Amino acid sequence: MTQPLTIHPDRLFPAEPQTRAVARKLYEQVKDLPIISPHGHVPPAWIADDIPFKNATDLLLTPDHYVNRILHGQGVDLGALGVPVGRTDFTDEQAREAWRIFCSHYELFRGTPMKYWMEMELVDIFGIDVRPSAETADDIYDAINAKLATDAFKPRALLDTFNIAFLATTDDPLDDLEHHAKLAADDSVATTVVPTFRPDKYLEAGRAGWNELIDALGAKTGIATDTFGGWIAAMENRRQFFKSMGAVSSDHAHIDLGTEPLPREEAEAVYAAARRGEATTEATDALRRTFMFEMARMASEDGLVMTLHPAVYRNHHQATFEKFGADVGGDIPIAIEAVHALHPMLNAFGTNPNFRVIIFGQDETVYSREVGPLAGFYPSVYVGPPWWFIDAPDAIMRWRSSVTEYGTFYKTTGFVDDTRAFMSIPARHDLARRVDSSYLATLVVQHRLALDEAQELANAFVADLPKKAFNITV
Amino acid sequence: MTQPLTIHPDRLFPAEPQTRAVARKLYEQVKDLPIISPHGHVPPAWIADDIPFKNATDLLLTPDHYVNRILHGQGVDLGALGVPVGRTDFTDEQAREAWRIFCSHYELFRGTPMKYWMEMELVDIFGIDVRPSAETADDIYDAINAKLATDAFKPRALLDTFNIAFLATTDDPLDDLEHHAKLAADDSVATTVVPTFRPDKYLEAGRAGWNELIDALGAKTGIATDTFGGWIAAMENRRQFFKSMGAVSSDHAHIDLGTEPLPREEAEAVYAAARRGEATTEATDALRRTFMFEMARMASEDGLVMTLHPAVYRNHHQATFEKFGADVGGDIPIAIEAVHALHPMLNAFGTNPNFRVIIFGQDETVYSREVGPLAGFYPSVYVGPPWWFIDAPDAIMRWRSSVTEYGTFYKTTGFVDDTRAFMSIPARHDLARRVDSSYLATLVVQHRLALDEAQELANAFVADLPKKAFNITV
Amino acid sequence: MTQPLTIHPDRLFPAEPQTRAVARKLYEQVKDLPIISPHGHVPPAWIADDIPFKNATDLLLTPDHYVNRILHGQGVDLGALGVPVGRTDFTDEQAREAWRIFCSHYELFRGTPMKYWMEMELVDIFGIDVRPSAETADDIYDAINAKLATDAFKPRALLDTFNIAFLATTDDPLDDLEHHAKLAADDSVATTVVPTFRPDKYLEAGRAGWNELIDALGAKTGIATDTFGGWIAAMENRRQFFKSMGAVSSDHAHIDLGTEPLPREEAEAVYAAARRGEATTEATDALRRTFMFEMARMASEDGLVMTLHPAVYRNHHQATFEKFGADVGGDIPIAIEAVHALHPMLNAFGTNPNFRVIIFGQDETVYSREVGPLAGFYPSVYVGPPWWFIDAPDAIMRWRSSVTEYGTFYKTTGFVDDTRAFMSIPARHDLARRVDSSYLATLVVQHRLALDEAQELANAFVADLPKKAFNITV
Repeated sequence: MTQPLTIHPDRLFPAEPQTRAVARKLYEQVKDLPIISPHGHVPPAWIADDIPFKNATDLLLTPDHYVNRILHGQGVDLGALGVPVGRTDFTDEQAREAWRIFCSHYELFRGTPMKYWMEMELVDIFGIDVRPSAETADDIYDAINAKLATDAFKPRALLDTFNIAFLATTDDPLDDLEHHAKLAADDSVATTVVPTFRPDKYLEAGRAGWNELIDALGAKTGIATDTFGGWIAAMENRRQFFKSMGAVSSDHAHIDLGTEPLPREEAEAVYAAARRGEATTEATDALRRTFMFEMARMASEDGLVMTLHPAVYRNHHQATFEKFGADVGGDIPIAIEAVHALHPMLNAFGTNPNFRVIIFGQDETVYSREVGPLAGFYPSVYVGPPWWFIDAPDAIMRWRSSVTEYGTFYKTTGFVDDTRAFMSIPARHDLARRVDSSYLATLVVQHRLALDEAQELANAFVADLPKKAFNITV
Repeated sequence: MTQPLTIHPDRLFPAEPQTRAVARKLYEQVKDLPIISPHGHVPPAWIADDIPFKNATDLLLTPDHYVNRILHGQGVDLGALGVPVGRTDFTDEQAREAWRIFCSHYELFRGTPMKYWMEMELVDIFGIDVRPSAETADDIYDAINAKLATDAFKPRALLDTFNIAFLATTDDPLDDLEHHAKLAADDSVATTVVPTFRPDKYLEAGRAGWNELIDALGAKTGIATDTFGGWIAAMENRRQFFKSMGAVSSDHAHIDLGTEPLPREEAEAVYAAARRGEATTEATDALRRTFMFEMARMASEDGLVMTLHPAVYRNHHQATFEKFGADVGGDIPIAIEAVHALHPMLNAFGTNPNFRVIIFGQDETVYSREVGPLAGFYPSVYVGPPWWFIDAPDAIMRWRSSVTEYGTFYKTTGFVDDTRAFMSIPARHDLARRVDSSYLATLVVQHRLALDEAQELANAFVADLPKKAFNITV
Repeated sequence: MTQPLTIHPDRLFPAEPQTRAVARKLYEQVKDLPIISPHGHVPPAWIADDIPFKNATDLLLTPDHYVNRILHGQGVDLGALGVPVGRTDFTDEQAREAWRIFCSHYELFRGTPMKYWMEMELVDIFGIDVRPSAETADDIYDAINAKLATDAFKPRALLDTFNIAFLATTDDPLDDLEHHAKLAADDSVATTVVPTFRPDKYLEAGRAGWNELIDALGAKTGIATDTFGGWIAAMENRRQFFKSMGAVSSDHAHIDLGTEPLPREEAEAVYAAARRGEATTEATDALRRTFMFEMARMASEDGLVMTLHPAVYRNHHQATFEKFGADVGGDIPIAIEAVHALHPMLNAFGTNPNFRVIIFGQDETVYSREVGPLAGFYPSVYVGPPWWFIDAPDAIMRWRSSVTEYGTFYKTTGFVDDTRAFMSIPARHDLARRVDSSYLATLVVQHRLALDEAQELANAFVADLPKKAFNITV
């Protein structure tokens, strides 16, 4: 019993007819505006080298841990889905079989944003008109692969099709950013593609391999990193390089938001001990928080916006991590505390007009309690949109409802897709535009906003606020 | 001014007409399906011996701490309501007077699920058509008692009337389960009635009376319980007995979710100290978490599903506890931490296909942050429905909204009534079916689900998922 | 492009027509009932001396940290808004310029309750019919000031216009309450104006200046405050004075809810050490919790209702505090724990019929988990309405939804404005009445409440419950 697959023009809008009419009007106004994607994980090589996508599994399934984890949660072996990315032993027939597994478990995605994204991709991008199922799996697979073999489905063409004006990638501080250089030099690429400075592992002296990273940092910069002061200078050096290559932000994802700096002398001592492999966990945690304070200080000087993605217990299942590596679905959020943790940083830089910090999170309890109030007061603090596990319709509505009343619309950043699933970028932004239109429409019909105010806001969410929050000029 | 009492066929459905129409359609499809009640507290003796209910107070008021606490919260003495259950000094006239107290305070229940349950019981089961009040109290009392005196209102007849296909009770590990044996041997009972293994107090070596319980455990099993190893063997023995009697799950309600095991040698030492009454609170807490790890290990071998009901501060008001005992309304939830606490257990057994654990909770903050993500990844983890203080319409909607997007519908268990209020079982399941239909209807009218998908889900919530999550075959 | 400014008669009501019709009906019934304001911060001198308001900035902008902080959050200097209150160097021209700043940033308030309050004040009280903007700023400023110069806009006349039946101020324990005496003696003031006992800083022995306060307490009461016992006696003395002056409650705002008392001997020792300036932070925290326990004990004897406003990190940004002082927008909420913290107090006094405590909070996570369940059980515990950062439409709806099902409507207190923004009092109460009518209407159309039940509740929220919760007789 093959079911048709369609996507409704009114999807995600509220059911109540007047509210829906307003939502539709607001959405109409923004639906075709260019996409600004100020934080994400698309590999820049894909675009620089315009590498064609291999097949549906390689594009939509294997690299997408949002999708993988749902299947894994029902007992599907990640290996059968091609995980980890980059395996050379995964045959074409196995890829096709992986797609069949996905399609035959398609009911699992009901009620999830993955279903929303996937269906918009299938219908809008690939022209599929049947619902994924065991019966339709092969036909869909073949239809997608046929499209992928055409020039119109190579990454650069899709950037144009998707109308992506700005795309930030995420990059290691020691990366030479050669792909970015290539793209910047190529007038045929209309999208502005910039790097993002992501130094996490250089700040975590308690992790295996830190000393080698710090050695490499020294080698790359020509600055001796045998002291805390050297680390600072080398980091400033690499931030400058990223900035010169177009970066607008640095990204930081640690287990807590701590920014309490050690006194300089103590920082030097702990740093030295860490270099000798003799620092305690407590000491390396304190050093990491000191580094974060220094990152904020640098940000207040070089103007790179800080984005904070805290409090995820990475690789919760050790055996899965050992077999398949990181980013395969085993990351679980924990609670966030922001008020005390950010106090040192905000006391020092919170009202500095050159400093900006965007707080993301997966802990909804801090929205109305901590993040909204901090953003409402501090000129430097912005509220990032719901992130991973909560970048979905109901959660976005809860976020707007919790943050707006005292954090205000104007201290939010617009939508951030934060994805490595290239093909889902338009769908994710579409989802956000629809949900935001719905939230605004609710305020309009309740006479809490005039229509012209809502119209201005709908535009601001998509264009003005991301540009303002991330210092983007496109 | 006596008010009529009616229950509306569209109760609990969303107001918006299209959404209501879909909700109604979905509900129609499931409203008469048999009730599966995989966890609850109905005394098995009631059914085994088919003991008639005494009167309205004895049935609906005295044993129901949901109802008692609301009256107590307005200053009503629990003793005047017949508490504690089983008192022999509570006269018929006092019982009638208790019912009058309840009816004359009936306005207190406005907006609560107790009102929903009670009104469905009064109207649907007892045919009452006036609202409880000081004026109507006696008439209602007499009308209920008249019904209770008939054969149609004895427990076994009601099991049929209520269409309960499966009913799990909650039982002490040393219980001989004679009532269950009697019921299993009686072909005239259509409902499958099974025990649940509830070993909490045997795991809490810091509580008064633990040594005596452990002695009894040894006596019952014939296994020496003077060592940690002996405790393990004796528990395995009792689990096997429960399993042989039809049990599908074990239930665990401790103050935290900790599962960190002590090294074996240390466990033995702490156990020995606890047996001598010399273990510290810290040590007995660590021992309890070790026992929990062992329970999970046993579950992965014998296949009993673990249900976790953590983080309730029991008997918060000492004087009330001393006067009336436990389960009289003085239990208050506290915050839950699941990610670190369950880490040892899930690392060891989380992907074991023979292991299953269902997380309940009264702390809503962990829904989208911890429980949904854990269930989305681990094949063994299921999300239990909202439990006690949150088993109500608005809370169930929040739960669906928070858990579905990344935990998915298919890692939820269906409704669990968890009640000792026998008469409320149909009303509780009805409430859940209506709220779930409403949630699904909202997705349908927002074009987030096709109608056929919602229809399959509505059935799954009531039939497939409870059976799957609890390994039930009826 | 000047936009008209109107306030819609159906503002804040749900969009769905049937629900809106019920909400309108409920609201109609309560909209003109007298305002009971049992907790707030209006300076009693304003009323006692009937001091005219100076200008729009002095009235609506400078003293309102709700408004200030939003402007500060976008980089506006608080000094340019006239902060801190009471500056003598802020010229008329600067006041006008401050108003222009506010109006030219008016879009920032979209989606916030400040917009709701302000527009109701502008339209209903001042007859303004154009939206604030850079263009309209001066006209609006002049129009407001013209009104303020008339007798009808002096505080006492406005008390009548606003139909405020009861108004509690917040006062220092050593205050002579001369303004209250003057008002009580003046038959021309229809509003009952009473003081509230706010002893926070006398309980915090770790804060600078505590010793001087305690000296003053001794001097005022004539009771030696060199011992813990003396402190107790002196506090009892001042509470009696407040009570004699009409106070119905004491208010308490500490960083946590702790009520664990030290043993008497230890309390005396810590107190003595604190008086010598030698107590540790840990010791003064323990002493503060002991004082809180004593406050509860006194409340159980003198009948003053305790209101708890816990867990705000005051003056988060040190430089702003140093420049502008307290209450200028830099206060940020933190997480609350109530179950353990209140345990000593509730064990001792929780069922005492003479004791009452109202829990407010800015941490929504405790609503369904802790506060609702505590209020449901303990006769003495009431749930205060959403407070500061959550006294807004969406947040109030979340609160009702989280607290009602087990805390019940009848353990809430009615709305508390807690404001120093005198002109916003009617708007704040109007907002609450509209949102409560909307919540009730939703229950009615879902057949969870009969209309007559909702009508009784709507009245109770505005009249009966505040009177009952705060022991008010007006």
